[in-house]
Amino acid sequence: MSKKKVVVALGHDALGYTILEQMDAVKKTAKALADLVEADLQLTITHSNGPQVSMIHKAMTELRRIYIDYTPAPMCVCSAMSQGYVGYDIQNSLKSELLSRGISVPVSTILTQVTVDPYDEAFYEPKKAIGRYMSKDDADIEVNKGNYVIQEKEGYRRIVAAPKPIDIVEIDAIKTLADAGQIVIACGGGGIPVIEQKHNLKGASAVIEKDSIAGRLASDLKADELLILTSVDYVYLNYGLENESPISSMTVAEAKKYIEDGQFGETDMLPKIMAAIEYLEAVPNGRAVITSLDKTHDAISEKVGTVITA
Amino acid sequence: MSKKKVVVALGHDALGYTILEQMDAVKKTAKALADLVEADLQLTITHSNGPQVSMIHKAMTELRRIYIDYTPAPMCVCSAMSQGYVGYDIQNSLKSELLSRGISVPVSTILTQVTVDPYDEAFYEPKKAIGRYMSKDDADIEVNKGNYVIQEKEGYRRIVAAPKPIDIVEIDAIKTLADAGQIVIACGGGGIPVIEQKHNLKGASAVIEKDSIAGRLASDLKADELLILTSVDYVYLNYGLENESPISSMTVAEAKKYIEDGQFGETDMLPKIMAAIEYLEAVPNGRAVITSLDKTHDAISEKVGTVITA
Repeated sequence: MSKKKVVVALGHDALGYTILEQMDAVKKTAKALADLVEADLQLTITHSNGPQVSMIHKAMTELRRIYIDYTPAPMCVCSAMSQGYVGYDIQNSLKSELLSRGISVPVSTILTQVTVDPYDEAFYEPKKAIGRYMSKDDADIEVNKGNYVIQEKEGYRRIVAAPKPIDIVEIDAIKTLADAGQIVIACGGGGIPVIEQKHNLKGASAVIEKDSIAGRLASDLKADELLILTSVDYVYLNYGLENESPISSMTVAEAKKYIEDGQFGETDMLPKIMAAIEYLEAVPNGRAVITSLDKTHDAISEKVGTVITA
Repeated sequence: MSKKKVVVALGHDALGYTILEQMDAVKKTAKALADLVEADLQLTITHSNGPQVSMIHKAMTELRRIYIDYTPAPMCVCSAMSQGYVGYDIQNSLKSELLSRGISVPVSTILTQVTVDPYDEAFYEPKKAIGRYMSKDDADIEVNKGNYVIQEKEGYRRIVAAPKPIDIVEIDAIKTLADAGQIVIACGGGGIPVIEQKHNLKGASAVIEKDSIAGRLASDLKADELLILTSVDYVYLNYGLENESPISSMTVAEAKKYIEDGQFGETDMLPKIMAAIEYLEAVPNGRAVITSLDKTHDAISEKVGTVITA
């Protein structure tokens, strides 16, 4: 019998914010992932890349200031670099952790592009802040180039669109490896957003939400489970209020009702619930689990975590 | 019948030296690669990354100067980023070129680590210059950290070891995709060099020569052909002299004799010939072809290029 397929979505907690933090964080993350592998699950792993792509974007922009012969790296290139960086750290630490447990399963990272719609509403109202803080003068230069900026307390920052993912360009390669029982890291940072222009796939100045692509990936792979690892053990009702209460299980219909009631934070929990719903509507027999990275082991034995089913 | 398997090694000409140059160069490279795909060959592609990893190393070092909270990125991380960057550009442009020809073959990049021997002689005498030029003061700081530097005309540069590759860590994933007839980009920049320490794979301050890994990759895949694309149409005897003459074919024994005679440049042609020999000793029925990227199309019909056989 083939292994149970699980798509795992890793958030910022799994990676940290700096190079040193990530070096440490991935070791802990590797242990959590290895627990899943030991439970005989086939993992396809996706991850966020906010701090990483910001760091790279800053670095490539500073390089341009010092060495005038370097042109600035477009966002799609920074995103590709961040997939290389994070993918390497995860596959390296997971491989090491598995070897230390005597498990020899291939682990690899597939660089992933994801098509987006050039007419996606997000392009008309970019909201995602990226890169370094800028002076007013530099912000004006960006605006003159046609880019968007916002003013924050510490200065100006460029903002980009976060359009919805349409197709995972490298899905065949991901499927082939997953079907062979291998561990695949893919769609890092939501994937490199590209726009189809005739036969070309043109890199877009945008980012794709990691949760959004996790739902799509689990749907495409017809995964048995979508496991979203975040910083809380459960999804909560009335989160942060005195009467907050953890949800141990809910149906898609219940989740939709809670969304209508405004129960889930727009930038943190809502995208995760939306990803779970997308996946369960595509794979009605599947189950989505939202819990914390620290509780991965207990989530396997269903002791913790919010389970969502169709 | 399964497709003929070809490992293609791309050099600097295929990529250019800057972000803008690479954007143009990969389009031309994609046409050459697509010609091979149209000839019904299964391609596994490897590429150099010298200018790219240097650019990233410079950028990450400058970032550290400006934002003190960033630690410098180690070479292995810069190498991983360069695999992400170059892999994305190649897979994107090749996918586009194939779509424009009505060919729908999956193309993807596998992030690749390659083990090296910590006792490799190269570590005792690093020779490969990387990164930006430094002042005497900065060079002294590097030396105090235990790194090696050399003085060049424009300033000081860090040098790292270029050890021989031992094992391709992600070879199973590469094989699985190649066996499925897909196009794989792997071992970019020679692979991310790692040293086995018990169960850990520790990133090494080193680079692996792209030609060297191409020979290993072709051996591991038992490829039917190793195609090394460079800047000259043929391997030459007496290269650069008045009596230079192109070699249309040679055996491994002949190649070894020419090496003894000092016929091949130590930093350019010799590593390519050595890679061909390694491959042909592992796969005696194979053939290695060395020609220029521009002549890829003619090389398919054997009109041009140096063919080496066992």
